[in-house]
Amino acid sequence: MIQFSVSHQDAACQARTGRLATSHGTVDTPVFMPVGTLGPVKGITPDELHSCGFGLMLSNSYHLYLRPGHQLIAELGGLHRFTGWSGAILTDSGGFQIVSLSDLRHITDEGVTFKSHLDGSMHELTPERCMEIQMALGSDIMMVLDECPTHPCTTEQARDAVRRSTQWARLCKQAAQGSGQALFGIVQGGLDADLRRMAAHDLVEMGFDGYALGGLSLGEDKLAMMAMIETTIPELPEDHPRYLMGVGLPEDLVEGVVRGIDMFDCVIPSRHGRTGWLFTSTGRVMIKNAQYARDESPIDHQCTCPVCERYSRAYLRHLFVSNEMLGVRLNTIHNLWYYHQLMKQLHEAIQEDRLLAYREQFYATREISPRSAAYVEKVGAGLTGQNGNSRKEQAL
Amino acid sequence: MIQFSVSHQDAACQARTGRLATSHGTVDTPVFMPVGTLGPVKGITPDELHSCGFGLMLSNSYHLYLRPGHQLIAELGGLHRFTGWSGAILTDSGGFQIVSLSDLRHITDEGVTFKSHLDGSMHELTPERCMEIQMALGSDIMMVLDECPTHPCTTEQARDAVRRSTQWARLCKQAAQGSGQALFGIVQGGLDADLRRMAAHDLVEMGFDGYALGGLSLGEDKLAMMAMIETTIPELPEDHPRYLMGVGLPEDLVEGVVRGIDMFDCVIPSRHGRTGWLFTSTGRVMIKNAQYARDESPIDHQCTCPVCERYSRAYLRHLFVSNEMLGVRLNTIHNLWYYHQLMKQLHEAIQEDRLLAYREQFYATREISPRSAAYVEKVGAGLTGQNGNSRKEQAL
Repeated sequence: MIQFSVSHQDAACQARTGRLATSHGTVDTPVFMPVGTLGPVKGITPDELHSCGFGLMLSNSYHLYLRPGHQLIAELGGLHRFTGWSGAILTDSGGFQIVSLSDLRHITDEGVTFKSHLDGSMHELTPERCMEIQMALGSDIMMVLDECPTHPCTTEQARDAVRRSTQWARLCKQAAQGSGQALFGIVQGGLDADLRRMAAHDLVEMGFDGYALGGLSLGEDKLAMMAMIETTIPELPEDHPRYLMGVGLPEDLVEGVVRGIDMFDCVIPSRHGRTGWLFTSTGRVMIKNAQYARDESPIDHQCTCPVCERYSRAYLRHLFVSNEMLGVRLNTIHNLWYYHQLMKQLHEAIQEDRLLAYREQFYATREISPRSAAYVEKVGAGLTGQNGNSRKEQAL
Repeated sequence: MIQFSVSHQDAACQARTGRLATSHGTVDTPVFMPVGTLGPVKGITPDELHSCGFGLMLSNSYHLYLRPGHQLIAELGGLHRFTGWSGAILTDSGGFQIVSLSDLRHITDEGVTFKSHLDGSMHELTPERCMEIQMALGSDIMMVLDECPTHPCTTEQARDAVRRSTQWARLCKQAAQGSGQALFGIVQGGLDADLRRMAAHDLVEMGFDGYALGGLSLGEDKLAMMAMIETTIPELPEDHPRYLMGVGLPEDLVEGVVRGIDMFDCVIPSRHGRTGWLFTSTGRVMIKNAQYARDESPIDHQCTCPVCERYSRAYLRHLFVSNEMLGVRLNTIHNLWYYHQLMKQLHEAIQEDRLLAYREQFYATREISPRSAAYVEKVGAGLTGQNGNSRKEQAL
């Protein structure tokens, strides 16, 4: 099981720091979880993930269920032993991957029937089956099966998904009893504030080890996402971790933390690493660009990661344009390092009651995307006047 | 420059141990050089290469000349600095890659005109240009430009290639003067013993820092390759390193060392790693095979590499069949480790005058390919009777 405690509440906003203790180590919150789709974060060893600072990662139940199979992993001692990762693991329910990857799926009150994206075989995921899979994997934190409607959806669809998700959450909780693994509920509700509040209320009444916000960052306006966070957070108990699923870019993490989120996961640092999008303290570096061909400087002068310590932009560009696997690996390590450092900085800022000042500085020193700029303009009071000129427009 | 000294001559065969000192460290011989086609060995960092035991690697001039360009690398401080590899580097001439990769090439006495396999642009490689490129890269050991005829070739073609290669070697030597980099000559001559002897004689008369045997392992019978080694070695000075280019499988290294070879390079450990062919003390493991799906043992119980210490065959198989990049990386590290350990064992066996006994044991404990078995039957006197039954036939 897990233990969570809030260590400090920022004086000026909803942000807080905390400690999340699992049987595979304790991590500070706010925490970012890198995603190991097939076991490892693509191309990265457990040692590298640890040395970037991570103690908690996310693994995808859907992928591991299909291949190599949860039973096989259980036979071989569970996911920690199978992958060699000694830190903590949160497994998702698989529901989101079914929606994203399977071109044939059918949802009833009993569960989801879907076609494997690998071999076309048919499978059924019920709340009980979902728990069985995650218990076989032996993760530290399991997620309930939920229905995550696509964006945009009608209020009717959102209401239906909430009803079903609440029902499934109850069945998951029953099925998980005695597993010794923590279980988080997931608040759905699309962009409907009333539905979100109702979903949160019902889940809290059932009682979970933590509460996630699902169905966000699916293409909706960022302001709408922030509004849903602001709507939901007051409904959740202060002494439990709050997890914003599948989010996001650095500015999303900053804004989520300001609003009281404790946990995040996203493929962005690793996926963007593979496409040569590198995060820095002043914005992004697209390493394939010709301007870096002769650039001897590191990706980011302020970064102390093993990649910035040793390699030039010129070399990383050469590896990237040559399609050399090492380039992808080094890019990923840099991005993971950046994400962990960002969380560390947010943690320190909260402890010192200066998160809003940190946020101001964060935007002042970097170029951000126009979409992000929009919500900063609206929600980051007093920031835009000072920094409007330094923010070049960038396509996401 | 380099310094080479023989430290021990095996009492029962041509094998010897030695020390090869470069301005980027000293390595024991016999030595195997992993190949860093585009800079790094595919997917592997300099630290990992060092920790496998390697102090000398090979880089491909052809690839680096085309991309990112030798001038750019020179501007950025040379290949060592560009790639972060602090050990020694041997660069090839590029001639072999032109033959293998360019579908349009034209060879005259002046040099080779060829079409880039990347963008179709036309380039000319002369002996002088070949030296200019390798000097810009700043390798520790350069190779002369040679003409490597395809296999099979006529005696006329082989003779022509030797004539041209000898002429180019002379021009390369002149062009390399004052570079401070070592230069090796390359003995060609196809499968014609007289041509090989003549080529070796002429190169030795010119005087190089080391001598390579080129144009072998191109598909010819392994016995024929061994015969060419046996023919050439007596023509080469004992106090200079002898390098068998582009070779090979573990059994090729054993047989080459027995015949007096000091240096080898080959893409096999890394390339085979990428295809899931893993080397072990008892033969090969094809990791994709279903028999490993639930196999908790390491690749090789006798191996002390970081992969065997930590990961099961079952996990490596999962990574491989899932196309997960980490699998390729771990496979490559294991294979590199195996190759370096093999060279260490050969070194020890020579020092203790028991190389032929080591070779006997080597074959007794593993399955080898029928092609290799053929030359073992012929050249490894007394071995076949004992081990004929333990050698299952394997396709190469």
